[in-house]
Amino acid sequence: MKNKKFFENMKRLFNPESVAVIGASNKFDKLGFHVMKSLTTGGYKGKIIPVNPSAKEIMGIKAYPSISAYSGSIDLAIIAVPARFVFQIFDECHEKDVGGVVLITAGFREIEDPEGAKNQEILKQKADSYGIPVIGPNTFGMINFWHNLNASFTPEFSLTKKGDIALVSQSGGMSHLLSFLSQRHNVGYSKIVGIGNRLNVDFYEMILFLKDDPHTKVIALYIEGIDNPMPMIRAIKDMHKSKPVVAYKTGSSKSSNLASKSHTGSMAGRYEIYIGALRQAGAIVVNTAEELMDTAKALSQSSIPDGNRVAVLSGQAGPGIAASDMAERVGLELPPFTEKTQKRINELLPPMAIRTNPVDMGPAWYDASATREIIDVAMRDENIDAVILLIMYASANIKAVEGIKEMLLEWKQRKPIITCISAPAGIWDKEVSFLEENKALTNYPSPERAAQALGNLWEYKKILLRG
Amino acid sequence: MKNKKFFENMKRLFNPESVAVIGASNKFDKLGFHVMKSLTTGGYKGKIIPVNPSAKEIMGIKAYPSISAYSGSIDLAIIAVPARFVFQIFDECHEKDVGGVVLITAGFREIEDPEGAKNQEILKQKADSYGIPVIGPNTFGMINFWHNLNASFTPEFSLTKKGDIALVSQSGGMSHLLSFLSQRHNVGYSKIVGIGNRLNVDFYEMILFLKDDPHTKVIALYIEGIDNPMPMIRAIKDMHKSKPVVAYKTGSSKSSNLASKSHTGSMAGRYEIYIGALRQAGAIVVNTAEELMDTAKALSQSSIPDGNRVAVLSGQAGPGIAASDMAERVGLELPPFTEKTQKRINELLPPMAIRTNPVDMGPAWYDASATREIIDVAMRDENIDAVILLIMYASANIKAVEGIKEMLLEWKQRKPIITCISAPAGIWDKEVSFLEENKALTNYPSPERAAQALGNLWEYKKILLRG
Repeated sequence: MKNKKFFENMKRLFNPESVAVIGASNKFDKLGFHVMKSLTTGGYKGKIIPVNPSAKEIMGIKAYPSISAYSGSIDLAIIAVPARFVFQIFDECHEKDVGGVVLITAGFREIEDPEGAKNQEILKQKADSYGIPVIGPNTFGMINFWHNLNASFTPEFSLTKKGDIALVSQSGGMSHLLSFLSQRHNVGYSKIVGIGNRLNVDFYEMILFLKDDPHTKVIALYIEGIDNPMPMIRAIKDMHKSKPVVAYKTGSSKSSNLASKSHTGSMAGRYEIYIGALRQAGAIVVNTAEELMDTAKALSQSSIPDGNRVAVLSGQAGPGIAASDMAERVGLELPPFTEKTQKRINELLPPMAIRTNPVDMGPAWYDASATREIIDVAMRDENIDAVILLIMYASANIKAVEGIKEMLLEWKQRKPIITCISAPAGIWDKEVSFLEENKALTNYPSPERAAQALGNLWEYKKILLRG
Repeated sequence: MKNKKFFENMKRLFNPESVAVIGASNKFDKLGFHVMKSLTTGGYKGKIIPVNPSAKEIMGIKAYPSISAYSGSIDLAIIAVPARFVFQIFDECHEKDVGGVVLITAGFREIEDPEGAKNQEILKQKADSYGIPVIGPNTFGMINFWHNLNASFTPEFSLTKKGDIALVSQSGGMSHLLSFLSQRHNVGYSKIVGIGNRLNVDFYEMILFLKDDPHTKVIALYIEGIDNPMPMIRAIKDMHKSKPVVAYKTGSSKSSNLASKSHTGSMAGRYEIYIGALRQAGAIVVNTAEELMDTAKALSQSSIPDGNRVAVLSGQAGPGIAASDMAERVGLELPPFTEKTQKRINELLPPMAIRTNPVDMGPAWYDASATREIIDVAMRDENIDAVILLIMYASANIKAVEGIKEMLLEWKQRKPIITCISAPAGIWDKEVSFLEENKALTNYPSPERAAQALGNLWEYKKILLRG
């Protein structure tokens, strides 16, 4: 169990007023170069202290030979030097009352040589006794978007949108992937944290910390395997009702299970046992990186449906049918509308259209008020808990999104409105982004992914209902 | 059975020297406006003949009151006028010896009023007796990218890349979606054809026609439901060995099955029976629009693996593990390398890395020659039929793609190289596009989609093997 000081130090770690980069460099082939670039180009407002015994300045900022040589206080030390120097640096961090450490350095528990695990254990004892939380070792670092802090070796994390999803990941590659995918899909993060070999900050500590983080609404986990999953499972159980937890656990295959052991120094363990424990604890379990992102996005932007009854409203029949198939596959239902709703839809659409659920609104393209009203009456229908809305651009319907904007803003997802609004690049991007920023809809690249995301929202509702 | 003249006319339909647009218009709210825009902005090189009884010119091109008023010959007539005018226009097309028709007009078999089905049957008899193939009715049209012919009401189809996949779709919305997704994922098409209500050009006729199309290597089908699927099934069976067929069949759910009937005038039918028949005929069956695109892309760009033994080579461990999980899930295996290969990889990577299959090449980031050689020895390994290569950008590895370019070009997918090379927009786009144009790799947005696409290539190999 970590004490109070430890968690106070985690606050300093994630919201530092000053950051020392130990191993800062002007040379591209040093990770300390990229860390400096991340900090300086990421908009960080605090004090940056490059530490390098053989440089006077790094990227135009005065450098120090050691942290002791700097007279001010240091909240966060990012360490990117070879493993053999780390022990001494930890002692210096303690003397200097550093709040927390991001330990990018690799070569500990993940290496074949048992020396690595031994050294990690010694480091852990040091850090614990000093009360210093350590992100890593063997990590790309972390980003706190709400503090403009990119404490990683990849400056381009800062291109990702600020939001309320916290990603805690056991893999740097997966964090990079999710960040780049999210840049393309308008998904925003509060924090992205690569916990690496988890010296003394594991999933458990991160979940506890994020529970009180005002900027985090949703927690997304990428898990390979940990030695003692029970604290994590308990932490999920304790908090999943206040903040939903989405978990992507890999290691289902023979080959990946072995690989995972090498990667993080932990057996992935019996995959099915993990999945069962995560589900029981109240996590929403997903199967791909894209599903992790899509589900976190839905939980971030959308309200949670009261039930599983969905209206599929489509500007074109085909995508509506594809969404309906997937909706039923993930446990949603497409019930008939109430008589009143159906009557009104029949008035608004000609007989040639599919007017039951799913609804083909195609014939109402040229009539924005009809489309608006169909969505409106479906949203009001007491048989309906959520709407999947699908609009494919087709030149003639270029005003379609504009035409329903105000109405969607009014609804503001009082019931979830999950969409696939698709067009060539540059055509509806602004409108869709605006509506997403205002949480008036949650958009996906395909009808099937929209339906699956709503299915996972319903999954969360079932978790909440089971008490 | 269609006669020879019919199929010759299909060639005229898809490769016209002259196109009449019946219902051409200068008014945005007419589909004939958008069709004219598609033709004129799509780079069509032939003669365009706008037909409109009350206009002298449309978009600066001389208009005619009827096709008879035009003295030259007409290969293709695109019809976008109300249904009631279509009978007479068909007669005029016959008199004028028009080669083929794209009938955008809706209001036939898909409407509730039995008059619609009756009218479609009369039209069909006319078209058949005239030997005129008709795409539609109730279609957005079609695009022949190799003829710069955008005969649809959506000009933006022309933004899609020219390639060798022919998409034949029963849904306009699905065609638009796939086109827009493909624009983002560098997937190229020979033709996109919306067969709509299939007057006399159904899946069967399209497959026969595409069999001899020199620009088409892969056939992608989006199927809702047809009255008599047997000719299509037989056509797939006859040709799937020369040109692979990927099929996405919707209508698995109760609600979508009903909707499909309204949409296309055909019951989707027992979903499982369709799937079974498609599989037996040799089609690769997929479950989402994205999987349809991903699979067609792999078949278009990649060679087919001899077996199911894959090497997963990853710049970062996590994505490698995720790909390995999915690979095993879709029937691929990750065997051990031969001793020789393993020995060489052990020399190229430090002990801290995962060096068995999957391989974590992370530590070789700064050493382009090591990465190159790992890929090279894996490709040469007799235990390996295909490679999944995963590289997530991370600033320090910005030269990673450049470093393996020449080697990938030399391999040219003699064994399939399926990749997820991921970076923020603008960073590796050019390199990856270049390598894709040269069929040196096939790239996907996530490790799981890369593995799934390779799984479907293996699926095709199994189909070929079963004879």
